[in-house]
Amino acid sequence: MKTRLTEKFDLKHPVISAPMAFAAGGRLAAAVTSAGGLGMIGGAYGDPDWLEQEFANAGNARVGCGLITWKMAAKMAGGPEILDRVLDHAPAAMFLSFGNPAPYAAQIAEAGVPLICQVQSLRDAKAAADCGAEVIVAQGAEAGGHGEKRATMTLVPEVADWLSAHAPDVLLLAAGGIADGRGLAAALMLGADGVLMGSRFWASAEANVSSAMVDEAIAATGDQTVRSTVMDVARGLNWPQRYTARVLKNAFTERWHGDVPGLMADAEAQAARWVEGWAAGDPERANTFVGEAAGLIHDRPPAADILNAVVAEAEGLLRRNWDG
Amino acid sequence: MKTRLTEKFDLKHPVISAPMAFAAGGRLAAAVTSAGGLGMIGGAYGDPDWLEQEFANAGNARVGCGLITWKMAAKMAGGPEILDRVLDHAPAAMFLSFGNPAPYAAQIAEAGVPLICQVQSLRDAKAAADCGAEVIVAQGAEAGGHGEKRATMTLVPEVADWLSAHAPDVLLLAAGGIADGRGLAAALMLGADGVLMGSRFWASAEANVSSAMVDEAIAATGDQTVRSTVMDVARGLNWPQRYTARVLKNAFTERWHGDVPGLMADAEAQAARWVEGWAAGDPERANTFVGEAAGLIHDRPPAADILNAVVAEAEGLLRRNWDG
Repeated sequence: MKTRLTEKFDLKHPVISAPMAFAAGGRLAAAVTSAGGLGMIGGAYGDPDWLEQEFANAGNARVGCGLITWKMAAKMAGGPEILDRVLDHAPAAMFLSFGNPAPYAAQIAEAGVPLICQVQSLRDAKAAADCGAEVIVAQGAEAGGHGEKRATMTLVPEVADWLSAHAPDVLLLAAGGIADGRGLAAALMLGADGVLMGSRFWASAEANVSSAMVDEAIAATGDQTVRSTVMDVARGLNWPQRYTARVLKNAFTERWHGDVPGLMADAEAQAARWVEGWAAGDPERANTFVGEAAGLIHDRPPAADILNAVVAEAEGLLRRNWDG
Repeated sequence: MKTRLTEKFDLKHPVISAPMAFAAGGRLAAAVTSAGGLGMIGGAYGDPDWLEQEFANAGNARVGCGLITWKMAAKMAGGPEILDRVLDHAPAAMFLSFGNPAPYAAQIAEAGVPLICQVQSLRDAKAAADCGAEVIVAQGAEAGGHGEKRATMTLVPEVADWLSAHAPDVLLLAAGGIADGRGLAAALMLGADGVLMGSRFWASAEANVSSAMVDEAIAATGDQTVRSTVMDVARGLNWPQRYTARVLKNAFTERWHGDVPGLMADAEAQAARWVEGWAAGDPERANTFVGEAAGLIHDRPPAADILNAVVAEAEGLLRRNWDG
């Protein structure tokens, strides 16, 4: 399967793994790249020691790296070292999401690193293209983890139309709800040059996720997720208000999702319990970060097997004779 | 393009128009059927005079009819006449959404009318199949008007997998965010037998919608919609809490979406203003009911032109050589 994405990054398959905080370490990123996609390390909140370790774990594999833009901005108020450190590794791409990428685009371009911007609205897609993003990832709200409100089904073609008219050299990926060959084929129909997959690679052998959480996701249907802020409130992460995170519902979200003031009033105790649960990989106390695609995920194979199966299924669908 | 949907209803195209309250009258339904799809009258809250008029407006065209299930249930507590009246017209299909269809399935089956159930979750898809629905419409939250939370991109393949294993003779349509050939082609990739299109036919020459509201939708991007309950609060419609409606944001939703108690405290004055605006087709005072696909809609052509363009675009995409 050849698309503008496979050509740009010299890939076998038009698939990038999402730089998921904590879950997407160097081992997963390297496995995705080795299998013909492009793997991403989830630099997330910008812990420098974690980043060094995970670039080491990726070995010689060509991988990209993601950072949470608003968090990087906050850290870089004291000096630009987080971005410097990532760029020192000459990543295959720098992936920014959740915030304004414009202040960092020039430095990334000077380093000769392609900038991939993930956006959640048409407005932010325009801003990303205007600041020099070479790839835009249009992420729908069905995605796991942080995101906003637009759906993949409409955001992708709407961004595709805008890019076609105003920035035709910028590539477009679809993200959110894509976990099998049906999703990849659908994304191509919607006008994407490829896809970003998160949840599906989150449930892979190489991801840094507890077995208990993956087992919860495998057992769940897509009906069982919720977009909420209460996990971030519990952790004291000051995410901008527009962003929520999709997780599997559990007793914690059932209790607090509709009662943020109550949670804040009891923040210390609740936070400790949540954070302890997270450290233990316990889906009862902490939340399992996975998208609506949980309902399409039934196993935890190696990332290479996932990628091969997704592409084979998509190819079969694209070659079918639809004239009946 | 042949699918199980075109075979079942002897259609030229695998497209059904959504039975949109107020907007989908007999003229639109007849136009969709005449152009090779299957048109639906939006019986909605079950006004018998409106229904008679719109079946008359459909003339001899073979059309289906939709009702809001929880509202029909409330009305039928005083006698089953609403459903009787619709079935007296021998509709091509009975379309139920937003509530439990089980109590009505037997009467619809006895009338020899195929039951189409629109659902917004896997759980409700199972319930619909269990009560004898011949077609299930999996509606994502990107849709205009009433709906729930799941996205089209994940709900369709997840329901497809369940039907394949448990009720393989039940057909599946995708709804929510589908307004062009890209959406139709994507829906087929996701495992649907066809699509239900609302917003796109809402902005057609034959729909009962004010020019001012259609103009607002044409000017809007998909970023400018919101799912809210405040329009129903203003109108005193007792929708079950799980259902919200997607509309274009305006001063009314900006003021009240985050302040339902405030709206209820001033309900009389606010309701009068909203209802007057609705009657006048004024998008400033009342809300324009349209989905995220507003960002993909740029004109108001006849329904036949819409249908032909959607199918031609999808056919082109499906025939493309994706091997590069």
